[in-house]
Amino acid sequence: MTSVKFDNQAFRQALGSFTTGVTIITATAPDGTPIGLTANSFNSVSLDPPMVLWSLAKTSLSVDAFNEAEHWNVHVLSQHQQHLSNTFAARGEDKFKDITLDNGISTAPLIPECSARFQCRNMVTHDGGDHLIFIGEVLDFDQQALPPLVFQQGQYAMTARKPWEEVNLSSEPSAPQCSYNEDLLGYLLGRSHFQMLFRMRKLFDEQALEDSHFFVLSVLNIQQKMTLEQLNTHIEYTGHLLSEVDIDFLTNQDLIERLTGGCYQLTTHGRETSLHHIAQAKAIEEELIAELGAGDVMALKLMLKRVIHKTDPGLPDLWQEQQS
Amino acid sequence: MTSVKFDNQAFRQALGSFTTGVTIITATAPDGTPIGLTANSFNSVSLDPPMVLWSLAKTSLSVDAFNEAEHWNVHVLSQHQQHLSNTFAARGEDKFKDITLDNGISTAPLIPECSARFQCRNMVTHDGGDHLIFIGEVLDFDQQALPPLVFQQGQYAMTARKPWEEVNLSSEPSAPQCSYNEDLLGYLLGRSHFQMLFRMRKLFDEQALEDSHFFVLSVLNIQQKMTLEQLNTHIEYTGHLLSEVDIDFLTNQDLIERLTGGCYQLTTHGRETSLHHIAQAKAIEEELIAELGAGDVMALKLMLKRVIHKTDPGLPDLWQEQQS
Repeated sequence: MTSVKFDNQAFRQALGSFTTGVTIITATAPDGTPIGLTANSFNSVSLDPPMVLWSLAKTSLSVDAFNEAEHWNVHVLSQHQQHLSNTFAARGEDKFKDITLDNGISTAPLIPECSARFQCRNMVTHDGGDHLIFIGEVLDFDQQALPPLVFQQGQYAMTARKPWEEVNLSSEPSAPQCSYNEDLLGYLLGRSHFQMLFRMRKLFDEQALEDSHFFVLSVLNIQQKMTLEQLNTHIEYTGHLLSEVDIDFLTNQDLIERLTGGCYQLTTHGRETSLHHIAQAKAIEEELIAELGAGDVMALKLMLKRVIHKTDPGLPDLWQEQQS
Repeated sequence: MTSVKFDNQAFRQALGSFTTGVTIITATAPDGTPIGLTANSFNSVSLDPPMVLWSLAKTSLSVDAFNEAEHWNVHVLSQHQQHLSNTFAARGEDKFKDITLDNGISTAPLIPECSARFQCRNMVTHDGGDHLIFIGEVLDFDQQALPPLVFQQGQYAMTARKPWEEVNLSSEPSAPQCSYNEDLLGYLLGRSHFQMLFRMRKLFDEQALEDSHFFVLSVLNIQQKMTLEQLNTHIEYTGHLLSEVDIDFLTNQDLIERLTGGCYQLTTHGRETSLHHIAQAKAIEEELIAELGAGDVMALKLMLKRVIHKTDPGLPDLWQEQQS
């Protein structure tokens, strides 16, 4: 029976549909050199005895060293270890040079701040075509509540977890006679935004502030000094335009003050007010992180940034230092 | 050397940090019965020859049948096959009864509408503790552009992919002296919402409509008939309250009409206008799907729904049929 030969790229791409985490596998070479490489071919095998496996290309420079190693460690990388994934996926230099290793039960290097780690004894290897399959017994493991790094279709990714119960807003989520339903992205973005803002309005109401005033105070919190015209370049896309009436109101409330030259800046009271608003926004966010999970909120933010990039009408950079 | 015995639950949980796709593996038992089960222990092994592996608990009822099967198929499930994942993870009844199978190159059942499929010849099995490791040669494969189902920490999930270049909005994304930066969730939600809406305002401007008018027309598009008071229960959380002036304006523009009893409904022109708005919102969404990927936008929507659930101030159900 002759073996099948596929278009390698198409085959790789099809395999890439199967999502995986990202691991770094480490060991110590016979000469004492620490070795390590990035692999997504890891998987669990057995619970009792605890066993895991991964596979390594026979052409890898490290294949002999891993073959001779008595122990190896598997590190399930967290989201903030993407740079390590890149380092250990490349050849050359000392990959461990910036890492302060933890002490493990063997001489195999143990990298800190992973989502999970498995310290293994090499049990057996099996032939796997152009790869070698390593099977190890897990001697020790640990886990941290850090969102794991994910790999899919040749790209890094984050996960947005699905609760076991379906998430529906309406009791009739797919009313077929309607021209739109709760799945319209614009609806979901608007409702999320306004519900978040709704929870802040109690604060605004205490000072009779409107949404646009909150936006202006926030902009001045970052940018310090701005003319009315400059302020409006930052907020007009929200549909609000700040008028002289608004400026007078904010001035009378001792929230902003006019400088010579026509610029406005926050007063001490204005800065305190704005910091109070932002603290409230952060508190709502912290609550959501506690309820939805840090990794999921991180994934949400990533997607929002990508949406913002694609729909940006050319807003000025709020955080860029102003030319004066 | 005695084998280590861990707290099974803690060990499972640590293994769950490693994200995986979800597969269904199928074969035909010696008596001709189709068999299949859900597994996330799949992984690629070799490109040339093309080989994959997965493992199965030795206590599984299907272990003998798979062991004797000459062929088995691996199905990488797509997001909309979560119900199949559940069906094939459970014991009992005829799991295939609602599936119209495709024709494959062997007698092993071939399930349609997966993200990818690998039709394999069973090559060898290896002992893996309480599991048996199946290694197969891939004889054929195919792939469809369907977002894959993901599993992490005992939960289904979706992925939000990270572009290779980091996504930053500002050239100074982490300005340390600022009280908030572009990572504030409230900022990202607001900016996404308003940028989407900004692209619709050209349409509103043609008819001198304000955002709140768009909201009202959208509500009436779904709910047909409402009093001013009822309309406001749907939109007041946006910070807008519809006044008699707005009602007069919309009536004069022939967008809504007053019925006896104090309810308002869309006129023919109003309905056309609203459908035009929604078509525009859908067009923006389609553009985003084309640029960001269907799976990523799906993940974004899931997360937004979860945020909406957690921050819902008790809004009335927009899609629920009204009591009359």
